[in-house]
Amino acid sequence: MDDHQRSEHRNLVKPLRCIVKLGGAAITCKNDLEKINEANLEMVATQLRRVMISGSSSSKVPGMDWSKRNGKLETSLDVDEFKDQELLESSSFIVVHGAGSFGHFQASQSGVHKGGLKRPIVKAGFVATRISVSTLNLEVVRALARGSDSHLVSNFYCKIASADLSTVAKALDLGFIPVLHGDAVLDELQGCTILSGDVIIRHLAEHLKPDYVVFLTDVFGVYDRPPTEPDAVLLKEIAVREDGNWSVVKPPLEDSQVEMTVATHDTTGGMQTKISEAASIAKLGIDVYIVKAATTHSVRALSGDLKGNIPDDWLGTAIRFAG
Amino acid sequence: MDDHQRSEHRNLVKPLRCIVKLGGAAITCKNDLEKINEANLEMVATQLRRVMISGSSSSKVPGMDWSKRNGKLETSLDVDEFKDQELLESSSFIVVHGAGSFGHFQASQSGVHKGGLKRPIVKAGFVATRISVSTLNLEVVRALARGSDSHLVSNFYCKIASADLSTVAKALDLGFIPVLHGDAVLDELQGCTILSGDVIIRHLAEHLKPDYVVFLTDVFGVYDRPPTEPDAVLLKEIAVREDGNWSVVKPPLEDSQVEMTVATHDTTGGMQTKISEAASIAKLGIDVYIVKAATTHSVRALSGDLKGNIPDDWLGTAIRFAG
Repeated sequence: MDDHQRSEHRNLVKPLRCIVKLGGAAITCKNDLEKINEANLEMVATQLRRVMISGSSSSKVPGMDWSKRNGKLETSLDVDEFKDQELLESSSFIVVHGAGSFGHFQASQSGVHKGGLKRPIVKAGFVATRISVSTLNLEVVRALARGSDSHLVSNFYCKIASADLSTVAKALDLGFIPVLHGDAVLDELQGCTILSGDVIIRHLAEHLKPDYVVFLTDVFGVYDRPPTEPDAVLLKEIAVREDGNWSVVKPPLEDSQVEMTVATHDTTGGMQTKISEAASIAKLGIDVYIVKAATTHSVRALSGDLKGNIPDDWLGTAIRFAG
Repeated sequence: MDDHQRSEHRNLVKPLRCIVKLGGAAITCKNDLEKINEANLEMVATQLRRVMISGSSSSKVPGMDWSKRNGKLETSLDVDEFKDQELLESSSFIVVHGAGSFGHFQASQSGVHKGGLKRPIVKAGFVATRISVSTLNLEVVRALARGSDSHLVSNFYCKIASADLSTVAKALDLGFIPVLHGDAVLDELQGCTILSGDVIIRHLAEHLKPDYVVFLTDVFGVYDRPPTEPDAVLLKEIAVREDGNWSVVKPPLEDSQVEMTVATHDTTGGMQTKISEAASIAKLGIDVYIVKAATTHSVRALSGDLKGNIPDDWLGTAIRFAG
């Protein structure tokens, strides 16, 4: 992400519909080291395949993960299945996933984010972090690439190692769904650092201008205080102004110092950071939805149905530009 | 590998000692779909760590794969082990691995090497090939990064996704051992193709000028006919001339039409291709050794001891420039 890239604006063959973040908390078991939340990941992959179908065509499509399964000797490929298969039109998505219980341990123990590759523990932690995150990535790509035996359309995924714009744009133009993730990366200034999935999303949104961005997480959205507290209120709509400041539009909060109220809880939930990140995308005129993964609410957000109007029964946080 | 890169010549901080190819046949079970040859891979990794030590220093160094092992709940990291650790000087290596029983099935079934991303099976095969090869790569990197409990020095590995010269050079300059591999890649002309590990090695050798190149394989070297035939003779030294033609120097073969004799067996063993590939590297003045992995002969090749003179008891094929 150098200055050359920053100044670029990419024209894609087909406009980008959505960038979706698979939050680490949603696809892994947060407190269980290097454990994937299989049920959630499976459901997220199924929902994604469903919403990517453009038009009403839906037919059985074989998967793209032809690796061996569960110790079986045979692969899952049946070449005949492809015989009459036409290339289905699907809309353009980019998938970025977080690390959850992969990578964080290795990164925090070694301090990779602070740089200093000359220290053995940082160097080892750099490698250990990449190994751990790559393990998760492989499983995410496999889950996304896996076909379905019901009448769903599978799409085509392709792991992209760096947040390099031209590679991502090229993959999109060829009809692939780029899959990216946060990782330990080399850094000009301090040797190495952590490039987070959220930073990748902001960068891609800025240059590739998706219609909307969806953050899939493990709670219903952003609350005015930690969601475990009994009085926590789900913030359903947040308006972002030109200067980057934002305020809660819905529900109407009594406290006039909303921004301060929210900010005070930052240390407990990283909520302020999450909203700021989303606000910087919304400022570009791109709607952002923060929603619980693998629910009916996430399907509605992913499908783009919320763009015009947010129904009262939708649970989640919509962050939009107010002009 | 565009023209811009081709014209470049990279000056590394520290000269590159060796590019080593971990042949697919050496690190996987060739006839067993997606099965790693664990014993061989372990031995190859151990030999590599051993030869990379520069000087005589050798002390216990903790590993860099801190992932969970065999279903254990704890990771293998002991932060205290790093306390008095100094960054050990190791010589510069690049590791490139083949695919063996990973990827080949997916690639051949779909015809990815022939391009045509608009056909669903090619597109799916592209993704399936990448998934399979990535699975192997992750295991190779983990094996290389794993520490040892004996008095060996571990080094630092870092997966490089593409054969991009500047990324490889940067990783080398920071003291990492870049690990690359053949893969399904996007291609300007035909949409997609297979970039083989051997092509990557030739490209890197040309620009980064290693002292020598070692191909680790599952037989003792290159024979005058398929090594399974009873009369097969191991070709111990091959001389490459300025015009790219080559001839067997050792053992002295009676047949004066050596090159033709060898070429006729090409269809059975791909021997001609292997020698041509090696000859194109040797033509640059870089010694090439083709040797059986996980043997005393591979240690000698990897250590660079063969540069001046090939001992009679060494089993393998040395391919060198004759001027």
